[in-house]
Amino acid sequence: MKIIPGPASKQLGEKIAELINAETVPIIFKTFPDGESYIRLEGEVQNQEVFIVQTTSPPQDAKIMQLAFIADAAKRNGAKKVTAIVPYLAYARQDKAFLQGEAISIEIIARMLKAAGIDSLITVNVHQEKVLKKFPFPAKNVSAIRLLAEYFRNKGYAGAFALAPDQGAMQIAEEAKKVLGGECGYLEKQRDRYTGQISVEKKTFDVRGKTAIIFDDIISTGGTIVAASKVLKELGAQKVFAVCVHPLLIGDAERRILEAGAEEIVGTDTVPSHVSKVSIAPLISGIIREHKSG
Amino acid sequence: MKIIPGPASKQLGEKIAELINAETVPIIFKTFPDGESYIRLEGEVQNQEVFIVQTTSPPQDAKIMQLAFIADAAKRNGAKKVTAIVPYLAYARQDKAFLQGEAISIEIIARMLKAAGIDSLITVNVHQEKVLKKFPFPAKNVSAIRLLAEYFRNKGYAGAFALAPDQGAMQIAEEAKKVLGGECGYLEKQRDRYTGQISVEKKTFDVRGKTAIIFDDIISTGGTIVAASKVLKELGAQKVFAVCVHPLLIGDAERRILEAGAEEIVGTDTVPSHVSKVSIAPLISGIIREHKSG
Repeated sequence: MKIIPGPASKQLGEKIAELINAETVPIIFKTFPDGESYIRLEGEVQNQEVFIVQTTSPPQDAKIMQLAFIADAAKRNGAKKVTAIVPYLAYARQDKAFLQGEAISIEIIARMLKAAGIDSLITVNVHQEKVLKKFPFPAKNVSAIRLLAEYFRNKGYAGAFALAPDQGAMQIAEEAKKVLGGECGYLEKQRDRYTGQISVEKKTFDVRGKTAIIFDDIISTGGTIVAASKVLKELGAQKVFAVCVHPLLIGDAERRILEAGAEEIVGTDTVPSHVSKVSIAPLISGIIREHKSG
Repeated sequence: MKIIPGPASKQLGEKIAELINAETVPIIFKTFPDGESYIRLEGEVQNQEVFIVQTTSPPQDAKIMQLAFIADAAKRNGAKKVTAIVPYLAYARQDKAFLQGEAISIEIIARMLKAAGIDSLITVNVHQEKVLKKFPFPAKNVSAIRLLAEYFRNKGYAGAFALAPDQGAMQIAEEAKKVLGGECGYLEKQRDRYTGQISVEKKTFDVRGKTAIIFDDIISTGGTIVAASKVLKELGAQKVFAVCVHPLLIGDAERRILEAGAEEIVGTDTVPSHVSKVSIAPLISGIIREHKSG
């Protein structure tokens, strides 16, 4: 078994390999002046089961293409089975055509990845788990919420309130609650059709003087988290943390979230960033170990 | 039959549809704040043969993905046959693995496009025609050099010298010569292994006092064209033009080419740019007409 750390998840790939004591296959990666990616495997994969670790955070399309190139190079050089570990899976918001004529991007991407040589996929907190059902190969989703909640418990925040910033994130807040041992709740989110402005229903959580932690899968432009932070501060929370698995932090998301009253933003290394304070390497190495023995 | 002008070749697609008097299927295209593309067809394609016009100039990967999404949406909505018209085909420099472990990007892309629903492909002056042979569907290459040469003949440059800036472009220069009726020749190019600097063998073409036109398939960073322009000026050419099918013009290519003595840069609309003075629409509409009757 070998681990191939892709250019978008080099550090994470190396960490995973270290934890399971597997050899890595380094990659020569370059970008030509016109923007084309070049990939070369620098190691043997003949008859090996390989795990490519490559996230697909922005620029998504380039990173998807790199993943496809690595899979092809692995197969072309004799790899027996290729599993893609895609810590953040792009295009996972849409699981069906809402309007006639729509493309269902993630299904096409899955078919394309299969054509490139990928035999199975592991991802972390995919936005819509349903999207994986239509993949033309086995695709598994694992959750990093326990790791994030443990990070806060270890920092002395046991008993903190876990908030889901919208109903869709309620499962996440409940997962966190199991580790933190406090209460949890969710906000009802409304998005203004015309302005795109996000507002949330006022709820009366008992967070006065307490620490409240907002848990979500992704922080993208941060609108949802900004609204949730404000509500928590208004309700008298003493400390508010903004926590997510995938810290995309598009544009000035970080500044806006901190200005809205959050103390700190904490994410994982599914999307490498300066807020990636929790590594998913132990989670993924556990899955690979199960996979080997299973 | 319907034409779908992709977001990367909207104008060209509409021009082609007009020339062959075909209906277009408009596309709703947007980019989410995180960079993901969204595609929706706004028209019927049920039982239709459709031609998607979408170039893959930088950012290549995003445009390839958009092409795949459009193909999927067309097939999903009942299109009978999907032909991709890809005026500039990215990743076409490499037709084999030069070093062990290399990915052959264009082959993977072709397999991925097939998985997305594409049944055949038409492209223009592909850098390496050999790459098309390994495509898993019929792929045709057509040349826009005649159109470019006619543009100059119509401007009064019949008899101009046609220069291939390297041996690989000699076929192109010969094509141009047939229209211009003058002489043609090529330069031997050397690229310094360490500095990347391009130098050319001095030749003694009879260009003194004449107009010389450099013809190439692509102008990317422009190094080759800069070197060729200087040689022509040194040999006493009165006017030098830099002509290509695909004006990628990466970075300061344009400024450097003009500073090297070229009067003007002329390209086609395979890559929409302000130097796209020649349209390939007549060429493509001819191919589609043949295709229909064939």
